[in-house]
Amino acid sequence: MDLGKLLDVPAPALELQATLQGLIDGKAKPLGALGRMEELALQIGIIQGTTTPHADRPMLLIFAGDHGMTRAGVMSFPSGNTVSMVDNLLQGQATANAFARVVGAELFVVDAGTDADLTNRAGLVHAKVARGTGDATVEPAMTSAQAEGAIVCGAGIATDLIVQGADLVILGEVGCGNTASASLITHSLTNAPLHMCIGPGAGHSPESMGVKRMAIQKAAQRSDAQDPLEVLHQFGGFEIAMMAGAILACGHKGVPVLIDGFICAAAALVAIRMSPHVAEYCIFTHSSPEPGSQVIMTALKARPLLNLNLHLGEGTGALLAIPLVQAACAFLCEVTSRDETMPRAAGF
Amino acid sequence: MDLGKLLDVPAPALELQATLQGLIDGKAKPLGALGRMEELALQIGIIQGTTTPHADRPMLLIFAGDHGMTRAGVMSFPSGNTVSMVDNLLQGQATANAFARVVGAELFVVDAGTDADLTNRAGLVHAKVARGTGDATVEPAMTSAQAEGAIVCGAGIATDLIVQGADLVILGEVGCGNTASASLITHSLTNAPLHMCIGPGAGHSPESMGVKRMAIQKAAQRSDAQDPLEVLHQFGGFEIAMMAGAILACGHKGVPVLIDGFICAAAALVAIRMSPHVAEYCIFTHSSPEPGSQVIMTALKARPLLNLNLHLGEGTGALLAIPLVQAACAFLCEVTSRDETMPRAAGF
Repeated sequence: MDLGKLLDVPAPALELQATLQGLIDGKAKPLGALGRMEELALQIGIIQGTTTPHADRPMLLIFAGDHGMTRAGVMSFPSGNTVSMVDNLLQGQATANAFARVVGAELFVVDAGTDADLTNRAGLVHAKVARGTGDATVEPAMTSAQAEGAIVCGAGIATDLIVQGADLVILGEVGCGNTASASLITHSLTNAPLHMCIGPGAGHSPESMGVKRMAIQKAAQRSDAQDPLEVLHQFGGFEIAMMAGAILACGHKGVPVLIDGFICAAAALVAIRMSPHVAEYCIFTHSSPEPGSQVIMTALKARPLLNLNLHLGEGTGALLAIPLVQAACAFLCEVTSRDETMPRAAGF
Repeated sequence: MDLGKLLDVPAPALELQATLQGLIDGKAKPLGALGRMEELALQIGIIQGTTTPHADRPMLLIFAGDHGMTRAGVMSFPSGNTVSMVDNLLQGQATANAFARVVGAELFVVDAGTDADLTNRAGLVHAKVARGTGDATVEPAMTSAQAEGAIVCGAGIATDLIVQGADLVILGEVGCGNTASASLITHSLTNAPLHMCIGPGAGHSPESMGVKRMAIQKAAQRSDAQDPLEVLHQFGGFEIAMMAGAILACGHKGVPVLIDGFICAAAALVAIRMSPHVAEYCIFTHSSPEPGSQVIMTALKARPLLNLNLHLGEGTGALLAIPLVQAACAFLCEVTSRDETMPRAAGF
């Protein structure tokens, strides 16, 4: 699929909205008593264009990529950790594997651009664009062609999942240094001051945090790009570009997509800036403590479902929201309507 | 079991705390990156006294009771709705049934004191104390013997569940008028001003809300009880007393118990005031928009896991937290430890 076609994301089926709201209000419970769960039921019903929505086959895509900016000190430990985490995921021993087993989600790991030769890794989806991005403090993170190619590639991988039967797509990532990339993307696409978009990521000492800030500032001075494709070209990363593509594909196919923390939200921001109706297919699952995450939520008027102080990545927060989506579907499909013995007055 | 024995709730196995925290910190992830999920893993490990905690057989008890205060106008619709909701639950068609199916919980409905003859209802746990409480605006809601008996009865029902294999107990309730009862309990046991403990419950018009406030104020003027058993005697209800007993039983047996919204939190407040170590076995699952709920959370220094604007009851919020508990257990049991390639410095 070419990028132009991918960007043609239709508005979801709003003609069902009134019907769905009537069904929700008619259930045997006080009006509005299920709060955010009612909003979720409405959103999924609209996306799927049905009064009996479902989320029976959730599938998680974890995109892995390395970042040249780590050489400028945005991480205070080796970027080889990206590969360690990929191996843990492939061996079923990472947190995302444990959470996915609990909630019954299938899990796939994609090499979007790790800085290692992983061709011998069984079970990995091989989609490497390059061995890590360029160092965005001194050069564009990737070429424009790489940015566009990564988006289309991510879209293709998500589309394959949907063709296989995924009715709920969940996104996650691993990538040392990718909070720096996400901070630059957030700043570029929201116009929020750069300092409001920078946080500690996986952890920094006060000294190394200063180095991270300076590196990000140096990168930001190199380009004032505001076009989403140009922003990816300048600030990367490969995993973010592929997630943006996967999100576009979900919009294109009419499948709800669960957005994890800060990095994934930055990818959603890119996708939504490229094709605004995509926002209506996105479910923001948790509030990351990274300050840039709050900037994105404000810009997109999004209210994440969970606030558990998670900042791991791997899609872990989004995985925890799967049962909420399934419960919202079950509410619409299975709960009886209010009968005549239960007056609507005063809330019922 | 007599009440005295039930109140003997031991402190959980704090000697495991350091070991558990070491395991959590040693997992292959940045330090603290799982936020509240790490706290949950620690709490469950301590309660169960193990480094491999589990929550494989969650069981929900929904206690139903009617309130004499409805005659004083704390509800603006008939209290017969309690029985309608019990019937919906028994038929598997209420929201709690739908949510329980999604999260794999077994569900039991207990007649603690509905104002109807339900002896012909199959599948109901019959434990009726009386057909509704007295009208607390003019008389004690129940006798002292009824209060004590209801606590012991609720404890017995929860103990039976644990003996059957429940390793996670979830509590919920239905009971028209029970936010009024919970408001009075909250006021009595926290000393918070009464007006801070009163909210709209299932829904009120401004006019009927004024009637509710006046009825609650009238009841509060009748007694300044502060002893938890005396507070139940004065303000009820039967379902709240039974939940308090069930919570005490969970502490006594060393089983974690999920606390639903405002009414269930009021029961937890009663139980904790009777036997303070019980607090360490309670997991507060969601923030109710009822103002009294926030009063209780502040008094108990509790931070609920979810904030989804739910105010339905039936244990619906607690059910949604079950996958979080299971994910916290899976994290401790299944996630690999950090290896030498992943330095601990700067967060790892």
